[in-house]
Amino acid sequence: MTCHLMRAAERAQLAMMLEVAAYPKPGNVDRCHDFAETTLEHFLASIIFARPALEEAEQGTGRIGEIIKHAVQQTSCHKGGNTHFGAFILLVPLVYGRDIPGAMKAIEKTDVSDAVAFYKAFGVTSVKVNSADELDVNDPSAIALVRERGLTLLDIMHHSAANDMVAREWVTGFPMTRKGADLLHQFGTGRQSIVQTFITLLASEPDTFIIKKHGIAIAQEIMLSARDLLDGKRTIEDFDAECIERDINPGSTADIIIAAIFVALGEGWSWDS
Amino acid sequence: MTCHLMRAAERAQLAMMLEVAAYPKPGNVDRCHDFAETTLEHFLASIIFARPALEEAEQGTGRIGEIIKHAVQQTSCHKGGNTHFGAFILLVPLVYGRDIPGAMKAIEKTDVSDAVAFYKAFGVTSVKVNSADELDVNDPSAIALVRERGLTLLDIMHHSAANDMVAREWVTGFPMTRKGADLLHQFGTGRQSIVQTFITLLASEPDTFIIKKHGIAIAQEIMLSARDLLDGKRTIEDFDAECIERDINPGSTADIIIAAIFVALGEGWSWDS
Repeated sequence: MTCHLMRAAERAQLAMMLEVAAYPKPGNVDRCHDFAETTLEHFLASIIFARPALEEAEQGTGRIGEIIKHAVQQTSCHKGGNTHFGAFILLVPLVYGRDIPGAMKAIEKTDVSDAVAFYKAFGVTSVKVNSADELDVNDPSAIALVRERGLTLLDIMHHSAANDMVAREWVTGFPMTRKGADLLHQFGTGRQSIVQTFITLLASEPDTFIIKKHGIAIAQEIMLSARDLLDGKRTIEDFDAECIERDINPGSTADIIIAAIFVALGEGWSWDS
Repeated sequence: MTCHLMRAAERAQLAMMLEVAAYPKPGNVDRCHDFAETTLEHFLASIIFARPALEEAEQGTGRIGEIIKHAVQQTSCHKGGNTHFGAFILLVPLVYGRDIPGAMKAIEKTDVSDAVAFYKAFGVTSVKVNSADELDVNDPSAIALVRERGLTLLDIMHHSAANDMVAREWVTGFPMTRKGADLLHQFGTGRQSIVQTFITLLASEPDTFIIKKHGIAIAQEIMLSARDLLDGKRTIEDFDAECIERDINPGSTADIIIAAIFVALGEGWSWDS
């Protein structure tokens, strides 16, 4: 079969689709598991609806913060709530720059307007944040503070990096995304490789989405469970069932997996075994 | 949440996604079931890859046959084989015309060039056809015959209508698509409504994809099984397991369900319960 050259926006959609379709994944929405309020269909609808924002990123001319806001707006058009906010924070610069070095160049150019647009994006969604924070993204007065201090979107990510592994990718050059892409290449083609990469990343650092929702102790416990899984001390089905039972979902790791798939696809990794 | 007005190309993608994600569906690919060669990921990748052809249809200026060919080409870029050929035959005129009356106007304007493009589309896929046919779409000499006789794409559909319920929609004004959309409205929002509509259509006519693959007797048996299901004489899980065991998949009914979802969405039906 003759293939067209996959454009970056399409590659991002494919990465989002492959992440959500992969299973079994402990705790997250997948083929075998919906959340009460957010189903597989909500994730897949978001992937379809985000196309214009991803094409905007692909053009590489607009502003990163504004494009993230557009992606969040376009995917808020269903009752499933936030599905891909963290993924867009990583994907928009990656699509913009095509790869990690290109994304870093795009990130360095963010300014106060990007930060303001980013804060506005939070207004259309409901994402867990650290509420003891003067730069709380749910606090309208924070935008005034951002303007007053002249903070760029990269500054905001520096501010958030300690508590958010997605923000940390911005300020440290996408090391987990890079590691995830390397693991995908290592584990081979297709669905099973995505699941293996997911478990391996989960075993390497406590997921910050779990930390925000359940605290550091539980996030570390899940990290150790992922290690037990890798060591063959428990099954993935058992681990998945426990996460679902306890309402624990490693959402930030999923965001990074999406970015990793995007990067790996760009380097020739094949999803199609 | 504020929603943008859904464009027709997006609506078509959403319809394709909702159809494949709905479950359980007897015999077809769904969340709980892949085919050996074609997985859920292949269907979802096709939905992403078809966007340019669906946008071309949305513009309403190009030629129907050529756009169907583009859709088939764009979605042949994976190892999963044909996923949506029949669906595109219905969706392209529907997206072009926005609804059934609009699709019928577009269909009436097809000419020989549409028919030729359509035959070329078959060259990039592998769809079951009736091989005793002088207009066999897999026979290169058929294109010469199409040109010689000056057959339009609508003529081709007339020729195929007896053996193909998708072609029959073209020549009879989309009655099953209309019935499917009416059933969706009747059964209410969301996934369960799609499954109910699927079973009801399957109970009303033998699926022509099953006829081509297994013969009329088995297609009628499956139709009667769907009636038993509606009458509460068997469970959908049992019916699904039997279809999978016997390699029976009602693929043409699935194509019509996609068209029905597209039409129903345009009439305000909500997928999002």
